[in-house]
Amino acid sequence: MMNFNDLMGQLKQLNYSNLYHNDFFLTWDKTQDELMAVWTVADMLRRLRENNISPKVFDSGLGISIFRDNSTRTRFSFASACNLLGLEVQDFEEGKSQVAHGETVKETANMISFMADVIGIRDDMYIGKGHTYQKAVADYVDEGYREGVLEQRPTIVNLQCDIDHPTQTMADALHLINEFGGIENLKGKKIAMTWAYSPSYGKPLSVPQGIIGLMTRLGMDVVLAHPEGYEIMPEVEEIALKNAKEFGGSYTKTNSMQEAFKDADIVYPKSWAPFAAMQERTKLYGEGKFDEIKELEKQLLSQNAEHKDWACTEELMTTTKNGKALYMHCLPADITGLSCKEGEVDESVFDRYRVPLYKEASYKPYIIAAMIFLQKIKNPEVTLKDLFDQNKARLIR
Amino acid sequence: MMNFNDLMGQLKQLNYSNLYHNDFFLTWDKTQDELMAVWTVADMLRRLRENNISPKVFDSGLGISIFRDNSTRTRFSFASACNLLGLEVQDFEEGKSQVAHGETVKETANMISFMADVIGIRDDMYIGKGHTYQKAVADYVDEGYREGVLEQRPTIVNLQCDIDHPTQTMADALHLINEFGGIENLKGKKIAMTWAYSPSYGKPLSVPQGIIGLMTRLGMDVVLAHPEGYEIMPEVEEIALKNAKEFGGSYTKTNSMQEAFKDADIVYPKSWAPFAAMQERTKLYGEGKFDEIKELEKQLLSQNAEHKDWACTEELMTTTKNGKALYMHCLPADITGLSCKEGEVDESVFDRYRVPLYKEASYKPYIIAAMIFLQKIKNPEVTLKDLFDQNKARLIR
Amino acid sequence: MMNFNDLMGQLKQLNYSNLYHNDFFLTWDKTQDELMAVWTVADMLRRLRENNISPKVFDSGLGISIFRDNSTRTRFSFASACNLLGLEVQDFEEGKSQVAHGETVKETANMISFMADVIGIRDDMYIGKGHTYQKAVADYVDEGYREGVLEQRPTIVNLQCDIDHPTQTMADALHLINEFGGIENLKGKKIAMTWAYSPSYGKPLSVPQGIIGLMTRLGMDVVLAHPEGYEIMPEVEEIALKNAKEFGGSYTKTNSMQEAFKDADIVYPKSWAPFAAMQERTKLYGEGKFDEIKELEKQLLSQNAEHKDWACTEELMTTTKNGKALYMHCLPADITGLSCKEGEVDESVFDRYRVPLYKEASYKPYIIAAMIFLQKIKNPEVTLKDLFDQNKARLIR
Repeated sequence: MMNFNDLMGQLKQLNYSNLYHNDFFLTWDKTQDELMAVWTVADMLRRLRENNISPKVFDSGLGISIFRDNSTRTRFSFASACNLLGLEVQDFEEGKSQVAHGETVKETANMISFMADVIGIRDDMYIGKGHTYQKAVADYVDEGYREGVLEQRPTIVNLQCDIDHPTQTMADALHLINEFGGIENLKGKKIAMTWAYSPSYGKPLSVPQGIIGLMTRLGMDVVLAHPEGYEIMPEVEEIALKNAKEFGGSYTKTNSMQEAFKDADIVYPKSWAPFAAMQERTKLYGEGKFDEIKELEKQLLSQNAEHKDWACTEELMTTTKNGKALYMHCLPADITGLSCKEGEVDESVFDRYRVPLYKEASYKPYIIAAMIFLQKIKNPEVTLKDLFDQNKARLIR
Repeated sequence: MMNFNDLMGQLKQLNYSNLYHNDFFLTWDKTQDELMAVWTVADMLRRLRENNISPKVFDSGLGISIFRDNSTRTRFSFASACNLLGLEVQDFEEGKSQVAHGETVKETANMISFMADVIGIRDDMYIGKGHTYQKAVADYVDEGYREGVLEQRPTIVNLQCDIDHPTQTMADALHLINEFGGIENLKGKKIAMTWAYSPSYGKPLSVPQGIIGLMTRLGMDVVLAHPEGYEIMPEVEEIALKNAKEFGGSYTKTNSMQEAFKDADIVYPKSWAPFAAMQERTKLYGEGKFDEIKELEKQLLSQNAEHKDWACTEELMTTTKNGKALYMHCLPADITGLSCKEGEVDESVFDRYRVPLYKEASYKPYIIAAMIFLQKIKNPEVTLKDLFDQNKARLIR
Repeated sequence: MMNFNDLMGQLKQLNYSNLYHNDFFLTWDKTQDELMAVWTVADMLRRLRENNISPKVFDSGLGISIFRDNSTRTRFSFASACNLLGLEVQDFEEGKSQVAHGETVKETANMISFMADVIGIRDDMYIGKGHTYQKAVADYVDEGYREGVLEQRPTIVNLQCDIDHPTQTMADALHLINEFGGIENLKGKKIAMTWAYSPSYGKPLSVPQGIIGLMTRLGMDVVLAHPEGYEIMPEVEEIALKNAKEFGGSYTKTNSMQEAFKDADIVYPKSWAPFAAMQERTKLYGEGKFDEIKELEKQLLSQNAEHKDWACTEELMTTTKNGKALYMHCLPADITGLSCKEGEVDESVFDRYRVPLYKEASYKPYIIAAMIFLQKIKNPEVTLKDLFDQNKARLIR
């Protein structure tokens, strides 16, 4: 792995000034240099902490988290990132709040932001809603800042929406960069983003969408595989195709898991719900048709059950490049015989990759911290050098 | 606005030493100089933060929050104030706790205070209970401190009780002081604190009571308007009358919203529940008569419905001073056509005043921080000068 | 009480290096010197804070709390300890998390630990489960640390399990050490750990077990008293007997509360559930037999009701040494006539000991802080001296 100074040298080569005072919604909003800067600073912050050097840049300030869906690792990753930089996390729980009593998003966005430096939002439940909600919050705090209501403009970090899951996919990519010894070594590698059977219903599409939208920028051969009827958002597929052209990789689709796994360097098998069904669900939800939603969920569960053969088995793994493809997952996985009777992956496969999987997850706090750092710090290179030189202990030993 | 040094000069003129090691329950417990000191220090802390100077005075310590009612802005204001000064917020949630299992207030007050520097309490649900509860907590931590159980005596900040809402009304007043260019300019101004129709039932009386109890000390002409049957606590009206005499303003009452709005410089239309009904409700609650409470609520809703004409309309706004009275609200407001079919205020009126309303709210974190600062810091002028001179960055840039 | 330098002298005499990079599960895992070091450092940290010297050793970092049972004082004690040392508390609430969705303990343990310095766990609900769970978490973070998933190995502090409640009993013991003017003065003192009637059912056994397991190491005459059928874990009784032999005290049992109280220097009357019944309950729970659990609870409540005479009355207190035994309780107590009709203790007895009881509780945050400090700091004596010499103010005055 590169040391702090090598990473600094790398950072100096990049043009990433537009990240400053900006938000992070979708990886395809950002330039290659900007993504590279996030990965580089994530590794730099990690080097600092590994060497017991505190990267705290905030003496006080709040990191607001808004989770509209359950979360363990993303919640803790955001809390860790904020704490690392000196921000105290304050959860905005709509249950606890008065949003129920008719408070508007515009008002809430300002009321929670008087001393907020960053707002992390997870809103992945309803197609067409999550990203829109995050943009609205951004517009409202922008307005509040312009009008002098807010002293600082809090920056938004997308902790998962209906379209993309950038903190996950950027962590996945940094894991690959480090596993394969550099981003240049990812060119021409085959990654299989495939659907897999899960007894639990309606998992978000943001991971498969985010993966094809990001990995196609690394010159990789990206294959999306799923049974018929499990299509993802067409807009994101267009982005994947565009990226493949622009960055010299490829994007292909198949309805065969076998074909996707064949000679793959990396496999990412996980369940998701059909896009069309999620649209229908959002529509029914909007109309308050909850019985119809239950009915829809029953249908989808039985539809899933027709594809139990879509599983990451030992047998299937042997068909990958030298039988040694890197297995990836955003976790938690549905593990056959462990967490469920039949699921996404064989227990023996999952166990063999447990350590790399946990390492994959370990990048997320640093990715989030890097996004905050680059969005809030005007001269990252100067500040990082100062932190390194000051050498302030994180833990007095 | 005054700069830091002007504010320091103003602070030096004031006698506010009794705030130290004391609590903040009701504005009418405090002298003019003490209130002036809170406003002055609130602005000084704001200047520091605006100039990226950290006002952190606690290296460690806890700010305990006890919310017996939902809250967004007060919760975040308290968290922001504590964080600004270096205290970590710890919510005391009675649900999570063992209070249910027969723990007494005395015991709890001590158990949560071993390392607590401040306790913020919101308890506005039951007439005759909230303020009493806050005083009890204060007495018990006093006792614990005297007896050597507690190493420091945590200071109490009333985040809203059944009688007063000082962090709201002090923020409202600071907003007025800054909008009108100084406290002296408020003399003779007419402020209309009027009831307004809301479809939601049983809103606390602490805001109207707090407003007439505080604004009558600023030499303003304070008018309280409500339909018959919506009287507030008589004790607070007596305080308002006393204040008006003492400080050269006036306090009058009317059952006509039109009369209140006529030529008003400031209007504060919001809903509240009748005092007598709230007393009845508290009594029924004490007797565990929940069916009777439901019945009472039904009655009150229909009683409200008889007064839908009590709304802050564009038409009514034209009758205010030059048709340009400053519209105020503690938020969230019930906005006709937006958050409800018929409510407290026309959407167009609310929208025109959105920015001033948000600015009004933005003072609350600083008011709370100033209360904590003045109650915990022995020599505020020295400490504030040191903070200013040290010029420690809040955010490294 | 000893001052900081005397305590430092005491600490220098002790061999406690094995506490470093280790966990605290059960007091009987530790040597006398190690326990003595915890008490000594707890008092040293307290002296620092009493003298407004900040003992903050972490510039950033997380203290994770996992509470599988309600808690007020332990929750706040852990939060206070973490805050005192510079760690931000992050609650891991399984409700909020995806544990429900089939996440394994191994995975969770790593996912929450990427930036965790300490994990405090309370899991006292099911016999045979709590301690096992805590050990599992420790093994998994060990593995994660060895495999390079975690940059630091978070240390575990047992905040109460099915076997022991070390932060409670160590605080109880430090209270005794200070009340009796030194640990040597505890030799030969009689302490009565007795069952007492409570209308609430199924209180954990960890306190009585922890008390007989710890106090028998201080050369005390420990008497355990309970009605027939309220036996505790036999393994812990064996430890108590072994300790009594090794450390020159005694351990005896009786089914008479009178006999236990006779001439006792210290009494610790509290309710607990029979071990055998708790085993049965755990078994039923495992089998999902919830009706049977309800039935069992009914039986146990009526069994309790047969022993209402097991109460700490004024009359019984007169039979203790000079009628002045020190009354102890982990709180909250079931107080006859106050928190229940008939309970563990007379209100007048409880009231007379209220201040010592609160002082007893006040040691817990420092005990927890000392455990964290000694488990995370390589050279405690050097670091404590530096903190003392630097004399950094906790609160700027």
